[in-house]
Amino acid sequence: MLPPTIIWTGDAARGHVEILDQTLLPARIETITLRHAAAMINAIRTLKIRGAPAIGVAGAYGLVLAMQPHVALSCAAFIARLEDEASGLAGARPTAVNLKYALDRVCRCVRREVKKTPLPPASVLLSLALDEAHAIHHEDKRLCDAIGEAGAPLIKQGLRVLTHCNAGALATTGIGTGLAPLFTAHRRGVMFKVWVDETRPLWQGARLTALELQHAGIDTTLICDNAAAWLMQRGDIDLVMVGADRIACNGDVANKIGTYALAVAAATHTIPFYVAAPFTTFDAACPDGSAIPVEERSPDEVVRPMGLEIAPPGIKAYNPAFDVTPAAYIRGIVTERGILAPGDVARAAKD
Amino acid sequence: MLPPTIIWTGDAARGHVEILDQTLLPARIETITLRHAAAMINAIRTLKIRGAPAIGVAGAYGLVLAMQPHVALSCAAFIARLEDEASGLAGARPTAVNLKYALDRVCRCVRREVKKTPLPPASVLLSLALDEAHAIHHEDKRLCDAIGEAGAPLIKQGLRVLTHCNAGALATTGIGTGLAPLFTAHRRGVMFKVWVDETRPLWQGARLTALELQHAGIDTTLICDNAAAWLMQRGDIDLVMVGADRIACNGDVANKIGTYALAVAAATHTIPFYVAAPFTTFDAACPDGSAIPVEERSPDEVVRPMGLEIAPPGIKAYNPAFDVTPAAYIRGIVTERGILAPGDVARAAKD
Repeated sequence: MLPPTIIWTGDAARGHVEILDQTLLPARIETITLRHAAAMINAIRTLKIRGAPAIGVAGAYGLVLAMQPHVALSCAAFIARLEDEASGLAGARPTAVNLKYALDRVCRCVRREVKKTPLPPASVLLSLALDEAHAIHHEDKRLCDAIGEAGAPLIKQGLRVLTHCNAGALATTGIGTGLAPLFTAHRRGVMFKVWVDETRPLWQGARLTALELQHAGIDTTLICDNAAAWLMQRGDIDLVMVGADRIACNGDVANKIGTYALAVAAATHTIPFYVAAPFTTFDAACPDGSAIPVEERSPDEVVRPMGLEIAPPGIKAYNPAFDVTPAAYIRGIVTERGILAPGDVARAAKD
Repeated sequence: MLPPTIIWTGDAARGHVEILDQTLLPARIETITLRHAAAMINAIRTLKIRGAPAIGVAGAYGLVLAMQPHVALSCAAFIARLEDEASGLAGARPTAVNLKYALDRVCRCVRREVKKTPLPPASVLLSLALDEAHAIHHEDKRLCDAIGEAGAPLIKQGLRVLTHCNAGALATTGIGTGLAPLFTAHRRGVMFKVWVDETRPLWQGARLTALELQHAGIDTTLICDNAAAWLMQRGDIDLVMVGADRIACNGDVANKIGTYALAVAAATHTIPFYVAAPFTTFDAACPDGSAIPVEERSPDEVVRPMGLEIAPPGIKAYNPAFDVTPAAYIRGIVTERGILAPGDVARAAKD
């Protein structure tokens, strides 16, 4: 089996984080140790750790790393510093809401504590922050299992499923989100076939999803992103299942670039298009998809993938990392509390 | 400027072909010399020369190379051999109809000659074959210019055009087909912007189209294939213009894999979708797209692009090289005789 996406080792004061370096997959399976917030920001930004749920957990642990040197501060100064560090970590990936959610949650938990008297020492606040990060981590695992349970009934015997990017175990700290229904159905003995989009520019489908499904023994075939619509026209795809990086109040979904193209093609061929994501992906502050910030990444990812010179020197390139799929294209959102219509997620999030 | 796609040097008996090796672009601009049909078949199969019109010309010259050793044969034996060699060359790329068209044309021209008396010697037949190959070559150049004339009025000032794969000068022996309207409009001083799909798996957009447009001084931006539909949703694309590998009687068009996905996305956003191609791309033997053979290429192109290991060892991959876009998605087909509705191409081909 693959090593865990992320683990914390040790206590709050001197502990550190180990992550599986996903940029080396599938060729090399190596873990790296992170001892400073700057290393965590770099790991998130360079996609050594990626996937909305996993970077939420990574951000929470990163915040603990960031605060380790500051246990001599006063309570007030500790809180102020905590919020600065949280904001620095949040900037590492602007689109995924889970990162901000996890950082906010750690900050809130620490802030709650300093309303008590007597004021606790900063070292206690640091321990609380780590406890909260661990709680976020364990909840993520439980959420993945629950999404798997909720979505598995969609994955019928003989189904041909298309997925895009990686919303699998490597994107989370559990069995994944978009892939969780597949893993759960497979464990129950359902036989089905998965088409995996390679997912340019960073090939998360080819490098990560294909690896995970292959390790699980699921019948997997890799395709270029360009082939998906053609397979739909030929009748070779029965269902599309993807993850999400952010879900707006009206059910619009931001996910890896190329997701929207699949949704349009699926609608044209009346193929059901599902998103699987935990409620932490929901952003009450976004009324609709137009409010979701879409990260633009370096043109180098397009022009020189993994250092390969595929385009003439000096050419301009444009590299949006995400796109937004309007709710109307989405048959259902598979959550830890069942399959919801996209428009019902906002209401359910309030319950 | 880039060297010509293909040239014949010398007489029929001892001449040879030089081609620009497109597999080395954009990093290296090198020509290679071909002296045998086997070398030409290999060059076509490995995409050293590619693009439907260019491989038609390449096939015709390849047939001359194939027959050079056979000038001592009787007329009847020469013809029989010619047809065998033509069929071997035709198998190098099964989808592009121009190859078969050009080979048939050379064969027909030689066959016509042997109905005369006295029977000409095989050396004369060989010269006739070369004359016909030259005629095909010169016609291709004229066709490109005529397609440029017909399509240039579509390319208005300020337009943002999306193109896929390479239907440019490198795909022909002239100024291209799909790109010809762009080159012609640009020469007339029209300012516009081109989005170029990288075009996985072989990156003809990134390697070839971006290079050609950049050399011409046209404002060019490279994107991943995944980003096209998102740009359409954001209102950044006004028109799609692609080439064709084969056009069926009902106006269905086979073109590089990914074309159909663009057509579906363009239809969803009511963006006009044009195909530019000469009548040689029309196949009267195909009533509709379902009759067009779609070449499947090696999974290695998906799994190990240019030798880069992007997927886990042992993974299955599926690599269709083309897809078929139904006529209903196509606003017009830009031909050397003007812009036609897809359903009118068959009738016009008979005129």
